[in-house]
Amino acid sequence: MPAEAAPSYVWVAELPDAGARIALSPEESHYLAHVCRARVGDPASGTDGRGGLATLRLTVVGGVVEARVESVERAAPTRTAWLLCGAPEGARSDWLVEKLAELGVAVLQPVDCRRGVWKAGRDRQERWRRLAVAALRQSRRRFLLEVREPLALTAALAAVDPGARRWIADPIGPRASCIQPPEHGASVGLVGPAAGLDQDERDEVVSLGHEPMSLGDGRLRVETAGLAWAAWWSAGAGGKSPKGPELR
Amino acid sequence: MPAEAAPSYVWVAELPDAGARIALSPEESHYLAHVCRARVGDPASGTDGRGGLATLRLTVVGGVVEARVESVERAAPTRTAWLLCGAPEGARSDWLVEKLAELGVAVLQPVDCRRGVWKAGRDRQERWRRLAVAALRQSRRRFLLEVREPLALTAALAAVDPGARRWIADPIGPRASCIQPPEHGASVGLVGPAAGLDQDERDEVVSLGHEPMSLGDGRLRVETAGLAWAAWWSAGAGGKSPKGPELR
Repeated sequence: MPAEAAPSYVWVAELPDAGARIALSPEESHYLAHVCRARVGDPASGTDGRGGLATLRLTVVGGVVEARVESVERAAPTRTAWLLCGAPEGARSDWLVEKLAELGVAVLQPVDCRRGVWKAGRDRQERWRRLAVAALRQSRRRFLLEVREPLALTAALAAVDPGARRWIADPIGPRASCIQPPEHGASVGLVGPAAGLDQDERDEVVSLGHEPMSLGDGRLRVETAGLAWAAWWSAGAGGKSPKGPELR
Repeated sequence: MPAEAAPSYVWVAELPDAGARIALSPEESHYLAHVCRARVGDPASGTDGRGGLATLRLTVVGGVVEARVESVERAAPTRTAWLLCGAPEGARSDWLVEKLAELGVAVLQPVDCRRGVWKAGRDRQERWRRLAVAALRQSRRRFLLEVREPLALTAALAAVDPGARRWIADPIGPRASCIQPPEHGASVGLVGPAAGLDQDERDEVVSLGHEPMSLGDGRLRVETAGLAWAAWWSAGAGGKSPKGPELR
C-alpha cells in the first residue's frame, strides 16, 4: 500500500512524556531530513521500540532534528516471539536480522551448538542494531528486535520465559500449517545450526518442552528455517481473525 | 540434520534413462570435485529439476565430472506455487530467488505495475538461475525454481493456470494462519510493488479471484511478503499431517 499519507516514522532511544522536546540521533535525523525531506512544523511518529508511540512535531530540521512530543501512548506487547538460532553458513545473518525485525520478532538469540558456533564479527552488534532500527521504521512497529550476543545452548534455553510455548524446527514434526500460532503470550522457536543439533542437545531441548514443527518438505538453510518459523508466528496476528466480529 | 550420510546432490540439465553416461556442467563438476571432494566410484543423486531423480555413479572426476545413470525415477508435482511479485526496492531480489527456491516455489514471475517496474539487470537471469540451482542442491529438491522475465500485470495474470487457487497479500485480509495451504494443485500468490497496486490493478486482480491474505500485523517489504507467502504455502507439505496415519 502507498505510504504517502502516513507521517514519517522514526525510532527514538528514549521517549519522554508529552510536552518535552527531544533531539533525534544523527541516523534518524538524516532519515527525516534527507530521505523523508521533512520540514519544520511537519508531524512525525516516533517509537522507542519498547511499546511507546508518540506524535512528534518537528521544531528544527538540520544535521540534528529536534521535535516536540505532542502525545505518547505506551503499550505492553500482547504476544512475543523469540528465535533461538544456530549459526547460519556464511554472511547470511544480516538478512535474517532484517527479516525477523520486519516480522515482529522480539528477540534473536544466537546459540552456539556443538556442531556450529557463531563467528565473532567486528561491529556486528552495531550493524544488526542499525538493520533492526531500519526495519522498525519500514514496518512501523512499536517493538524493536533485540539481537543478543551468542550464548551456549543451555544458557540460551535457561533465559527463555518459563511460560513460553516452545517449538523446534524439525522436518519430521507435525506440519506448521496444522499448528495455530499463539495469539497471546510468549512463543519461542529453535533452529539448530547447519549441521544440526547432536543427540544430547536434542534430548535437552525436547525435555524442556520444545515441540517439533515441520516448516516444509525440503531441507531449509538455517536462516530460511528461522524466517519460515517467524512468518508462521507473524501470520497469527493482524488481518481478520475468524474469531473476531470482522468476518461476519 | 547432518548430511554426512546422504550422497552428493547435483542438478543435470537433461537426465537420460538408466544405463546412459552423462557429463556434468562445469558448475556441478566443480561442486562435486571440490566442494564434496567426490571420487571415482562414489554415488551421487542427480535431478533435472523437472521431477527426475537419478542415482548416479561417478566414472570420471576432473574439470568435467562424468557419471553413469544407474536408475531414474520421474515424478510430476502434486502441488505447485507461483509467486507473482512486484519490484522490491534495491538489490533484494537475489535473496528472494534463493529463498523461494529453498521453499519449493515453482515459478517466480516478476510483474511490472504502474507504481513499480523491475529494473533491467545485466546477466540477471543467469545469476538467478545459478542461485536457484544452488538452492535446489541445498534443499535436495526435484523441481527447479523457474524465474521468468518480468511481465506486465495483466499478461502475468493471464499466464496463470486457470484452475489455480489465488491470493493477494493484503494487510486487511483474513490471517494466513486461518487459511489452510492447499495440499494439491496450483497455488498463486501475488505481492504488489513497494508502492502498492493502484485501484484499477487491484480491481483486476480481485475480479480474477485472488483472495486477500494477511501475512502479519506490520508493513512488510515486498520480498518479505513474498517469502512469508511462500513459507505459508511450504508449511502445507512435509512433516506429519493430522489427516495421515503418522499421527495416530
